[in-house]
Amino acid sequence: MTLLEKYKGIRQRTEDICAPLQTEDYVVQPVADVSPPKWHIGHTTWFFETFLLKEHLKGYKEYNPDYNYVFNSYYETVGARVIRTDRGNLSRPTVKDVYSYRLYVDEAMTSFLSNHASGDLKDIIILGFNHEEQHQELLYTDIKYILGHNPLFPAYSSDTNVLEKQTSKNAFVSVENGLYEIGYTGEGFCFDNELSRHQVYLREYKISTALVSNEEYLEFILAGGYKDFRYWHAEGWDWVKTNNVQSPMYWHLFDGHWYHYTLKGLQPVDEKGTLNHISFYEASAYAAWKGMRLPTEFEWEAAAPHFNWGQRWEWTESAYLPYPGFAKAPGAIGEYNGKFMVNQKVLRGASQVTSPQHGRITYRNFFHPHLRWQYTGIRLAQ
Amino acid sequence: MTLLEKYKGIRQRTEDICAPLQTEDYVVQPVADVSPPKWHIGHTTWFFETFLLKEHLKGYKEYNPDYNYVFNSYYETVGARVIRTDRGNLSRPTVKDVYSYRLYVDEAMTSFLSNHASGDLKDIIILGFNHEEQHQELLYTDIKYILGHNPLFPAYSSDTNVLEKQTSKNAFVSVENGLYEIGYTGEGFCFDNELSRHQVYLREYKISTALVSNEEYLEFILAGGYKDFRYWHAEGWDWVKTNNVQSPMYWHLFDGHWYHYTLKGLQPVDEKGTLNHISFYEASAYAAWKGMRLPTEFEWEAAAPHFNWGQRWEWTESAYLPYPGFAKAPGAIGEYNGKFMVNQKVLRGASQVTSPQHGRITYRNFFHPHLRWQYTGIRLAQ
Amino acid sequence: MTLLEKYKGIRQRTEDICAPLQTEDYVVQPVADVSPPKWHIGHTTWFFETFLLKEHLKGYKEYNPDYNYVFNSYYETVGARVIRTDRGNLSRPTVKDVYSYRLYVDEAMTSFLSNHASGDLKDIIILGFNHEEQHQELLYTDIKYILGHNPLFPAYSSDTNVLEKQTSKNAFVSVENGLYEIGYTGEGFCFDNELSRHQVYLREYKISTALVSNEEYLEFILAGGYKDFRYWHAEGWDWVKTNNVQSPMYWHLFDGHWYHYTLKGLQPVDEKGTLNHISFYEASAYAAWKGMRLPTEFEWEAAAPHFNWGQRWEWTESAYLPYPGFAKAPGAIGEYNGKFMVNQKVLRGASQVTSPQHGRITYRNFFHPHLRWQYTGIRLAQ
Amino acid sequence: MTLLEKYKGIRQRTEDICAPLQTEDYVVQPVADVSPPKWHIGHTTWFFETFLLKEHLKGYKEYNPDYNYVFNSYYETVGARVIRTDRGNLSRPTVKDVYSYRLYVDEAMTSFLSNHASGDLKDIIILGFNHEEQHQELLYTDIKYILGHNPLFPAYSSDTNVLEKQTSKNAFVSVENGLYEIGYTGEGFCFDNELSRHQVYLREYKISTALVSNEEYLEFILAGGYKDFRYWHAEGWDWVKTNNVQSPMYWHLFDGHWYHYTLKGLQPVDEKGTLNHISFYEASAYAAWKGMRLPTEFEWEAAAPHFNWGQRWEWTESAYLPYPGFAKAPGAIGEYNGKFMVNQKVLRGASQVTSPQHGRITYRNFFHPHLRWQYTGIRLAQ
Repeated sequence: MTLLEKYKGIRQRTEDICAPLQTEDYVVQPVADVSPPKWHIGHTTWFFETFLLKEHLKGYKEYNPDYNYVFNSYYETVGARVIRTDRGNLSRPTVKDVYSYRLYVDEAMTSFLSNHASGDLKDIIILGFNHEEQHQELLYTDIKYILGHNPLFPAYSSDTNVLEKQTSKNAFVSVENGLYEIGYTGEGFCFDNELSRHQVYLREYKISTALVSNEEYLEFILAGGYKDFRYWHAEGWDWVKTNNVQSPMYWHLFDGHWYHYTLKGLQPVDEKGTLNHISFYEASAYAAWKGMRLPTEFEWEAAAPHFNWGQRWEWTESAYLPYPGFAKAPGAIGEYNGKFMVNQKVLRGASQVTSPQHGRITYRNFFHPHLRWQYTGIRLAQ
Repeated sequence: MTLLEKYKGIRQRTEDICAPLQTEDYVVQPVADVSPPKWHIGHTTWFFETFLLKEHLKGYKEYNPDYNYVFNSYYETVGARVIRTDRGNLSRPTVKDVYSYRLYVDEAMTSFLSNHASGDLKDIIILGFNHEEQHQELLYTDIKYILGHNPLFPAYSSDTNVLEKQTSKNAFVSVENGLYEIGYTGEGFCFDNELSRHQVYLREYKISTALVSNEEYLEFILAGGYKDFRYWHAEGWDWVKTNNVQSPMYWHLFDGHWYHYTLKGLQPVDEKGTLNHISFYEASAYAAWKGMRLPTEFEWEAAAPHFNWGQRWEWTESAYLPYPGFAKAPGAIGEYNGKFMVNQKVLRGASQVTSPQHGRITYRNFFHPHLRWQYTGIRLAQ
Repeated sequence: MTLLEKYKGIRQRTEDICAPLQTEDYVVQPVADVSPPKWHIGHTTWFFETFLLKEHLKGYKEYNPDYNYVFNSYYETVGARVIRTDRGNLSRPTVKDVYSYRLYVDEAMTSFLSNHASGDLKDIIILGFNHEEQHQELLYTDIKYILGHNPLFPAYSSDTNVLEKQTSKNAFVSVENGLYEIGYTGEGFCFDNELSRHQVYLREYKISTALVSNEEYLEFILAGGYKDFRYWHAEGWDWVKTNNVQSPMYWHLFDGHWYHYTLKGLQPVDEKGTLNHISFYEASAYAAWKGMRLPTEFEWEAAAPHFNWGQRWEWTESAYLPYPGFAKAPGAIGEYNGKFMVNQKVLRGASQVTSPQHGRITYRNFFHPHLRWQYTGIRLAQ
Repeated sequence: MTLLEKYKGIRQRTEDICAPLQTEDYVVQPVADVSPPKWHIGHTTWFFETFLLKEHLKGYKEYNPDYNYVFNSYYETVGARVIRTDRGNLSRPTVKDVYSYRLYVDEAMTSFLSNHASGDLKDIIILGFNHEEQHQELLYTDIKYILGHNPLFPAYSSDTNVLEKQTSKNAFVSVENGLYEIGYTGEGFCFDNELSRHQVYLREYKISTALVSNEEYLEFILAGGYKDFRYWHAEGWDWVKTNNVQSPMYWHLFDGHWYHYTLKGLQPVDEKGTLNHISFYEASAYAAWKGMRLPTEFEWEAAAPHFNWGQRWEWTESAYLPYPGFAKAPGAIGEYNGKFMVNQKVLRGASQVTSPQHGRITYRNFFHPHLRWQYTGIRLAQ
């Protein structure tokens, strides 16, 4: 596949994800972590315009200088006019305007990629692809948040195949102690945070081949897990009490039965289904209640060939930190990962809404420990 | 004009105000005081459905029980499912859905009013008209806020006649001391807070026949009015410092020139124009700087025959309190005014975006002293 | 009594109020509205030093220039070193240091008053006396807050005569309609906010000769008064829910019995006692539940000769606003009252912890409507 | 030395640290992280009473059941009376009361230790010693905070030898790659978080033998380090802007010269002195500006024999996480360390206010990355 074909495929997939939306769904931002879908549409476009077209396409005319301001997530270098631009407050540019912008950039990129199919810009082009794939997953999770927190519980799509999946029974495999190679190696794309490959010494451990199911987690709820501080980190316990947390996100107890919002609308919780939308604090408390623990990201990577992964982002015990020898790229691209390396937890694997081909065994996802709107789950270790 | 004709005229005017909007403009809520336009469209409809159709139209079928929850501003009686419904987070019901709801209710109301043109429900029907007229003004001010706080500064309409108006020179008239009748009298509609008519004794005072102009207020800014605590209430001074207030809302200093956002877009401040969008704190500080004061609402009402009013809501010194003999209506309608009678200031007059025929010399508008998104101005007294 | 004798008496009384305190009690500030007792001791001293000694006593040497910073409540004119000085965070100056400062100023004042017993400084001297008397009452209420919010519930003094008082049965007197003179007249001292005397027209009304008792208020609690939004202002209802208010301040329900903290320690609530420590919101809700209302400050002043007052500060319906003709004094003294004339409610009367001779029928006390740590009660009107 | 002699020595040292304090200094709590000295005095006493005397000394009579409530830092198990007990709001128990409690427990402990000098309680006794030593360091840092944030800048003690120390020139030593043993081994005391000893593979690295000096850090300030987002974590940059951070804690720029508060009072910053009181964010930004990085806690431990440590707690890049095989103790003692293992950074070494003999090469101290009131410094790695 040429870069141009790949570009077109990825760009099309983003629009396909948004196809079931109403105009209004593109606009709102119920919480800070969720971005309005139209912002994702514009921001992924801005990425190609800013790092390729404006710098490398001769004669390219910027679509609208104000859009740099509206669709930039790298705020630190922005100066001048100081107006608060909480994304969810912006009714303009309209969805139609944003798609016009997208079309304009796509046409320029088509012309650009026809002539630059290879060479020294390939890295930044591929980065743009991966960047857009990350936002495709965020589109799914942000749309789910927007519709799932609406009191009408509208479905995203009735014929979606993006359902909650089923899991299998827990079974533990043992991994021997020794030195393991961690981090990306190979010719393909990876993010800077997966480099550089290095050795980590691991003690012998056991790790489950299955993710925790809804049924198993319900036992924790019924056993009073949310009411017993002993299973929780001090900050997790504060989080439970402050937010009165009693179940995973999207779960509702109606008339004694558990329902959860899915992309198909409100559904009874499937007991055999894989647990979804829990925070690191909940993952850790569940493991403590089971007398076990979460794996480190190194244990996960060393054991991953032994199990299937890809239903949920799996919380690990590891903090998100630079690998030995990690170096930021110069310039704005260098802000991509490094500056977030404090107070976040690593999640490994991929989820059922991760873009196809986007996952890697060395992939390091990261979120703050209280967040739950991603497709997150639990794999136990001991 | 029959009640039905009046109904149709008022309902049409609401839709006319929204005609220039894009779908996205209907959805957002940049601050708590501003409601999304689609909420105004739905809420005014809900009022007629709830207080007339559901209670008094035989065989009326509620459009959607969930809408009672979404469009109700009288939250106290709502129970059951507790989901946070910040209005600006709701992408559903869509704008099209809301207009369908509106059409459904309008059809039922047409049938209803054809048969109930008079009688004991007239009061609540007329209250519904006035309620909708209040929301028409809020539509103007909320739309202005939504567009005027967008970094693209889009115009509401280029051919709007809703421009900032000009004022005349200050000139003071004297009013003699004595007992004055205050409050509504007559056969027409008024709100409960304008009743009951009573006597107030006033000392002799002088009051300006003109509103303060932009030019006059600029003198206050240039004289350092925002930097000298002596002119301000203690809470006003806190407000200035906390929010770094340096000018009226919508004013921007670009390259040494003052611009302000208007419904036609960003415009240079017209020095002869009438000052707009200031808080009670600013109105009071300006008056103190001039060595004068704001009138009380009683002084205003007694003097109003001597000047033109209707460009701005004019801040008075008076707190919003019940008149002697004030009594709340029973039931939900009784929540209309009385429960807000603490910590707010009375504004008198009307503004250029007040609905025609909505103003009255006895009308008591009220807002918290820091708010500025309404069309507010200053009339001096001494 | 000479000014000097009066000075000595008032200064001594302040120290007498503090006599039962432990050193530690002088230091803490549990909430922003409460000041540490040592601050009151220093601030009342600072007042005499700043407005009399430093300006008018030849050769007076300021005790410590830093104290101007520490004991000044008129922060607006303070510049230079910006260090946060939350009063309750300051362990220094020590209590002993503050009393040394007090002694130093008292000696200078003694010398000063021996020579300036009359003349043009008398007004500011008398203002200093009244200022200190206001802080004497605050000492009682702040000490009560400090000790009453300690989990050990220590008594202020076992032999205090500052007990909760008893009230009599409600009985209403009628006051005829007509013009009434409001505001201070006479030769003695009054605050600027009681001037200038003016006429107010009042409708006929009835007002109770007694304050509401604990027993009567318990009926309101038992009838679910704190759970029914209909009796409350919208902001009052928010306050109830946000703070989970279920009873007056200092009340505790232990094993089904109501106790309240008093200056003698924790005591069973005396049913015949006069209700104490309620907010304006509670006062207003109680009155609404009784089908009555609170009096305005003008109704109160006109009727006050008909009843005894002095147990509680009585919430009125009136907002704290300038009287017609009110003018601020020039300079820092002008900050005394005027700048607080927004968002506060007038309380009339005096309380059992008000300094003797400090009360006046024209006295206008004022607090924000949610505050309850003063000795506040309810007198009904209709 | 017997356990009893050791007990007496440690308990005496705590009181010696407090000897220069005024009563008032014992009471205040300027920020949540700082505890009032009297709380430390009481809490360390409560530890021995709760875990030894009440459980293991036959016939021991609890001094005051309410003290369990006041001096307990393990709030999760506390129920019943819910009164907010912000430590700095409590004037009672008085300092004298707390010392009486301390004396009472010391006498019981003397009797207890005379009979239990060895055996199965030794572990908990030794834990109590180490617990008290931790609070001794906190006493120094909390007292410094209390006095250093007072606008009078009172000295703790003029003859203190607890001065800011000097550092030497940076010089880097190399450590070879390979497997290193990490964690405590031996017979003496260590905390549970230092266990269990395990192997970590390290790449070759260089680490400085000296801590960063004030002079070196001033270069960073002068080079605009606090104004260039590129050196900072995203959360660090937010912290800088939100708090307007421009220098280490306790530094003040007066008339163009840098001063800092020390336990001897306000002093000019000694350019050769060792940098003190910086957050992890500042440490990391400084390292980035130098083109270097902070060591991991494993690199630190492996290299520590090559340099002197003990002036500052040294921020490492490592997050505070459980070692492989970490297990919490059962019961309340198990809350000691494990529940804090999220969102905190490890500091290694010890500081000049750490209790003698308290430091260890395997010691893992931990704080949130924004905190600076401990004696913290920077050691560079590359």
